[in-house]
Amino acid sequence: MDRWVVIATERGKRPNDFKVPRDEKKGGDCPLCEHHEWQTPPEVLAYRDRESARDRPGWWVRVVPNKFPAVRIEGRDEIRQLGLYCVMNGVGAHEVVVESPDHGRALEDMNGYQVQEVIRAWRDRSMDLRRDARLKYIQVFKNHGNTAGASLEHPHSQIIATPLVPVEIERKLEGLTRYARRTGRCILCEMIVQEIQEQNRVVVETGKFISIAPFASRFPFETWIIPRDHQQDFGFIREDQVADLSAVLRTTLKKLTAALNRPPYNLVISTAPVNTGREDLIHFHWHLEILPRLTIAAGFELGTGYYINPTPPEMAASDLRETVVMYDGEYAKKYREVGKYV
Amino acid sequence: MDRWVVIATERGKRPNDFKVPRDEKKGGDCPLCEHHEWQTPPEVLAYRDRESARDRPGWWVRVVPNKFPAVRIEGRDEIRQLGLYCVMNGVGAHEVVVESPDHGRALEDMNGYQVQEVIRAWRDRSMDLRRDARLKYIQVFKNHGNTAGASLEHPHSQIIATPLVPVEIERKLEGLTRYARRTGRCILCEMIVQEIQEQNRVVVETGKFISIAPFASRFPFETWIIPRDHQQDFGFIREDQVADLSAVLRTTLKKLTAALNRPPYNLVISTAPVNTGREDLIHFHWHLEILPRLTIAAGFELGTGYYINPTPPEMAASDLRETVVMYDGEYAKKYREVGKYV
Repeated sequence: MDRWVVIATERGKRPNDFKVPRDEKKGGDCPLCEHHEWQTPPEVLAYRDRESARDRPGWWVRVVPNKFPAVRIEGRDEIRQLGLYCVMNGVGAHEVVVESPDHGRALEDMNGYQVQEVIRAWRDRSMDLRRDARLKYIQVFKNHGNTAGASLEHPHSQIIATPLVPVEIERKLEGLTRYARRTGRCILCEMIVQEIQEQNRVVVETGKFISIAPFASRFPFETWIIPRDHQQDFGFIREDQVADLSAVLRTTLKKLTAALNRPPYNLVISTAPVNTGREDLIHFHWHLEILPRLTIAAGFELGTGYYINPTPPEMAASDLRETVVMYDGEYAKKYREVGKYV
Repeated sequence: MDRWVVIATERGKRPNDFKVPRDEKKGGDCPLCEHHEWQTPPEVLAYRDRESARDRPGWWVRVVPNKFPAVRIEGRDEIRQLGLYCVMNGVGAHEVVVESPDHGRALEDMNGYQVQEVIRAWRDRSMDLRRDARLKYIQVFKNHGNTAGASLEHPHSQIIATPLVPVEIERKLEGLTRYARRTGRCILCEMIVQEIQEQNRVVVETGKFISIAPFASRFPFETWIIPRDHQQDFGFIREDQVADLSAVLRTTLKKLTAALNRPPYNLVISTAPVNTGREDLIHFHWHLEILPRLTIAAGFELGTGYYINPTPPEMAASDLRETVVMYDGEYAKKYREVGKYV
């Protein structure tokens, strides 16, 4: 029935493995902290002081392979038939982006430059991973908080590259392509225009991005950050966009954090597949989704694929617009120059 | 981009509404307990003593409308256009099936007859709800445990009827129809044959049902119960099947409960849409999915639609087969007559 699932055989969890609650590690014992570089596999990227050595202290953003990867870079991506079923090796890459050496500083509490560097790490790894032609999609994501699936407290995001174009991306691309073929326009570009006119679902606007509570939000306070330019691939984000994205991302996260009292959330970047040579990719318009986890997707959602959202997006956006967030002086000044902030 | 979401405007949750953790109600204060019938809306179905009165004690299974419905029976199911977006009234029905008057008895601890009665309540409500021609799908589901989305502790399941065929059902039906058109056969019927031959994913077999850890399980210890007969619509389950389903469901739940130490789980019945007059419905093969919630679907799953399952289904099935569960004498005897149990 057309479903691909990653069976992480190496993890091979038996019943007893699930009985232990996943406790958050506290600093000191944390493998992602500075001075604990030896506790992770060797780094694949780090922004660090010129005098510092690889896998040593002195970095401010560091990317390492996941110690317990869901997929691995080795192997071939052939599909084998097993009676009625198909099997493919879980080839791919699974990396951890350590967003700061500081264990206790959440992404929204970092300064603007640090968040820019995190965005650059996402971009640089995305561009590097695609040099492996077997990889067809690069998923940048972040799980923040235990109930959003984070097993480590230290601020980090993750990147998984997969050998297939994921179903969700395939569906989005189909929707975007269908609309483009019918109207000659991009539905996300049109959405930006409509949202700016109506204003009732807008959270933050800058020169190059807009942050909105989207019309059919699956989660209460779901927020999307969309580049105003029609840009298909996050990997090609420009330097002037990086600064702007850092500002809008920080503001949006600060507002969510203040309004909802530090909610658990997932962040996912939805972008065009890579290494496929497909012509329909021009219709993709990448965006970043922030998905607070305040409700539990349960039997109804699992059975039907529908989500029940108890908070209309217009109400969420208005609450977030009214949530005033404070900046340290330097950044506040800079932000005020960028555009419409609180 | 083709997504329908239920925005439950009446719930209208503001930020502060999410700050309170959802505590489980204890018996005594529970609106689903016997003698608390006045705390729920009037019942739409109850199996009760002949002498007892409606909305009074004396029932063993009772179905009431949900006090906080995600969808409502009133309204028209027209689709309106709002610029780029479509809106439809959340017409439908949302009911609660109280599975027992006994607050503390979980479904797997009930006797076989009681579980049969729960199955009959699901069936009877499914048949009754479809008399409203606006309703196109009837989702029977159960959330067990807080982290599986249950907000009440009292044993209960739910039924939501929707005015659209849900995306997940549409996709399953497409997959089943495509296979049937290509091969002339039903892939679930074929799966049953292959699984019985291979045995390595079988959990329980009876004369009329099979319970397996399916090949591409999304969740660790995910288990499906499938009728051996090709039957498209759960609503048409026969009386001889009800007894057998009760046995296989209890055994499977007892095994999961014992192996995983009472895990939170969702149960969903996947069945053919109703009131559509479509010809492809004959390809559906209904089944019941039990989805233990031991892992958290996080950023990767939300972004890609792929699930990462750390437990291969063969390992889950073998663990469940080896988990010996005890019955009270009377039922054990009866079950042993039915077929291959532990």
